[in-house]
Amino acid sequence: PATKLPRVGTTIFTEMSQLAASEGAINLSQGFPDFDAPEALRARVAHHIGEGANQYAPMTGVPALREAIATKCQRLYGRKPCADTEVTVTSGATEALFAAFAAVVRQGDEVILFDPCYDSYEPAIELNGGRPVRLPLDPVDFGIDWQRLADAIGPCTRMIVVNTPHNPTGTVLSADDLQRLAELVRDTDILLVGDEVYEHIVYDGRRHHSLLCHDELAQRSFVVSSFGKTYHCTGWKVGYCIAPAPLSAEFRKVHQYLTFSTVTPVQLALADFLAAAPEHYLELPDFYQAKRDLFCELLSPGRFRFSPAPGTYFQLLDYSAISDLPDTEFARWLTREAKVAAIPVSVFCEQPLKRRLVRFCFAKGEATLREAAQRLCSI
Amino acid sequence: PATKLPRVGTTIFTEMSQLAASEGAINLSQGFPDFDAPEALRARVAHHIGEGANQYAPMTGVPALREAIATKCQRLYGRKPCADTEVTVTSGATEALFAAFAAVVRQGDEVILFDPCYDSYEPAIELNGGRPVRLPLDPVDFGIDWQRLADAIGPCTRMIVVNTPHNPTGTVLSADDLQRLAELVRDTDILLVGDEVYEHIVYDGRRHHSLLCHDELAQRSFVVSSFGKTYHCTGWKVGYCIAPAPLSAEFRKVHQYLTFSTVTPVQLALADFLAAAPEHYLELPDFYQAKRDLFCELLSPGRFRFSPAPGTYFQLLDYSAISDLPDTEFARWLTREAKVAAIPVSVFCEQPLKRRLVRFCFAKGEATLREAAQRLCSI
Ligand SMILES: CSCCC(=O)C(=O)O
Ligand SMILES: CSCCC(=O)C(=O)O
Repeated sequence: PATKLPRVGTTIFTEMSQLAASEGAINLSQGFPDFDAPEALRARVAHHIGEGANQYAPMTGVPALREAIATKCQRLYGRKPCADTEVTVTSGATEALFAAFAAVVRQGDEVILFDPCYDSYEPAIELNGGRPVRLPLDPVDFGIDWQRLADAIGPCTRMIVVNTPHNPTGTVLSADDLQRLAELVRDTDILLVGDEVYEHIVYDGRRHHSLLCHDELAQRSFVVSSFGKTYHCTGWKVGYCIAPAPLSAEFRKVHQYLTFSTVTPVQLALADFLAAAPEHYLELPDFYQAKRDLFCELLSPGRFRFSPAPGTYFQLLDYSAISDLPDTEFARWLTREAKVAAIPVSVFCEQPLKRRLVRFCFAKGEATLREAAQRLCSI
Repeated sequence: PATKLPRVGTTIFTEMSQLAASEGAINLSQGFPDFDAPEALRARVAHHIGEGANQYAPMTGVPALREAIATKCQRLYGRKPCADTEVTVTSGATEALFAAFAAVVRQGDEVILFDPCYDSYEPAIELNGGRPVRLPLDPVDFGIDWQRLADAIGPCTRMIVVNTPHNPTGTVLSADDLQRLAELVRDTDILLVGDEVYEHIVYDGRRHHSLLCHDELAQRSFVVSSFGKTYHCTGWKVGYCIAPAPLSAEFRKVHQYLTFSTVTPVQLALADFLAAAPEHYLELPDFYQAKRDLFCELLSPGRFRFSPAPGTYFQLLDYSAISDLPDTEFARWLTREAKVAAIPVSVFCEQPLKRRLVRFCFAKGEATLREAAQRLCSI
């Protein structure tokens, strides 16, 4: 029989990273740093492998890591989830997102997504029998259109996926936004997924407002984050999900048959590092803001238009002064001609975009950002 | 709304490992070794972490590891899958099994399982809208009842799951078995899952007959294996799936949204080790047979009855001469009273078992096996 995912090919991240490699281009497409995880963290993984921590971790995650995650939430968001019943370690945020959908979405359930959104949500929802309903974000500031959201909510609405800081636009929800969301879902049994993998990467003095900060929202949310983004180790694939105990129970029923557990020595190392260097993630805003500011400054003489990203390590650039090509073609052209690879934003969209946008990852060393910006200014 | 998995609690492996810990019992329940991964393999993980191989691996797996897997298959099974289009590295065999079901099982499809079977198949199939159909294995030798299988195949049959060497019984399919299976599925479009995670662990001169050995079967099969079982590193969670290119394409569509990719430095280390020490897995039959033989010999004065496992690192023991308790109660009683934890076989079954059986993992050091056997003989 035909494919279950007729609209799915290979993810854009694989496609563009491969194109970048074959074209010898600077790869600012797929989001990953070109600098390494902290030395002390890497040393702890080697330590635990040497000590023989190489068999199955507990299905829900190593207790010390779950506890460290809970402590971090308390410190940052004023809520301490129960490490035992509300925190589950997963094989990356991708697994956590899939497990959240698989745990609660049933045949015919609607799941509201904002357009653009990360590319894994829709196929994960569809594989679980759900129907994604896409609501366009404001084309200028990428804010949520609250009236449209209110209108979209109906008896089939099972879930709303909230991604803040937002990939690919960098938008960061405010405390007011969370309050409006809370008013809309109050008196419904709609659940939320909070994709907060860039929780530590917000700029210009902004704060990340986690769904965990808001009592009413927290009690109906699966909040997902990732150590890969925080500690520059995207290849270790360790994420987690925080949800109230009854939701976590359903989540774990799925997780245990999806991957069962996650790499033991890496979990132990992360637990050690969170305890030993709790200031590390507090330094990320400055660390990445310097990169964003450098990249934007270097691009200012060029013909791309942009406003600096409020969060994440992605910068959108509007190329309408440069080319009329659709963004997927422009991204390929740019990789070949300027030797800089980026992600066309339309791959995150269901509705055709009214703007011409490509996304660049600036989690790169200064020399790379300089060289990339120079190439981008020369076209 | 109510749970999507009403019959699912926490896996028996978590439950019994926790009970073993709280009772201070020897844990022969969940299957994992109490000895470590080879030193040279562990050193390579540390090496690659030190070298900075800490960002995303390619979605399908590190090329060198896919190539090493293909080479191993050629050597052992006379078929070399295409590393590029037919081999996908996953976050453990558990993910590979789930992805295979998610890739092809549709609402209402029937998937044939043999009873008893590993506990993740059924919930994974159900989450994907499929209907598991369980066929009891022969209660004495745990062979497949071919007539029953022929009768069970119908227009809704989408898949058959074949697990060899078989968990929990240790049964190893013969070349004849594969031929009979091939005759039954010929002229249908039924797909197969081959759960072959114990492929290297067979005894008494037996050979493992992979679905890959049989041309007709290989062209309709997802063959799943695991490095955790082979290299004593169950906590690293690296497995793989081999399937013909069109099936692998569907498999990868799911895999990319399930976990996207698998721990990079571990993949690189496995590739190095497979190339440097290709004889390692050839030594596993002798290595584990010595353990099985020791365990069985030590148990012979006791009241358990058994025939030595043909494969896997599990030994079934029949306790009907000792107790009338149902096996789940007997396993708990044994953990408390004899301080040895095991897995009750009924958790792998839909039909009530006609025999009283518990499963013991003998992937343990000699001293542990001696102490466990002594305790088991004393009851
Ligand atoms: C899983 S690869 C994609 C990485 C990422 O999050 C992005 O580039 O948006
Ligand atoms: C994933 S934990 C279970 C390990 C195992 O394969 C078994 O004990 O059967």
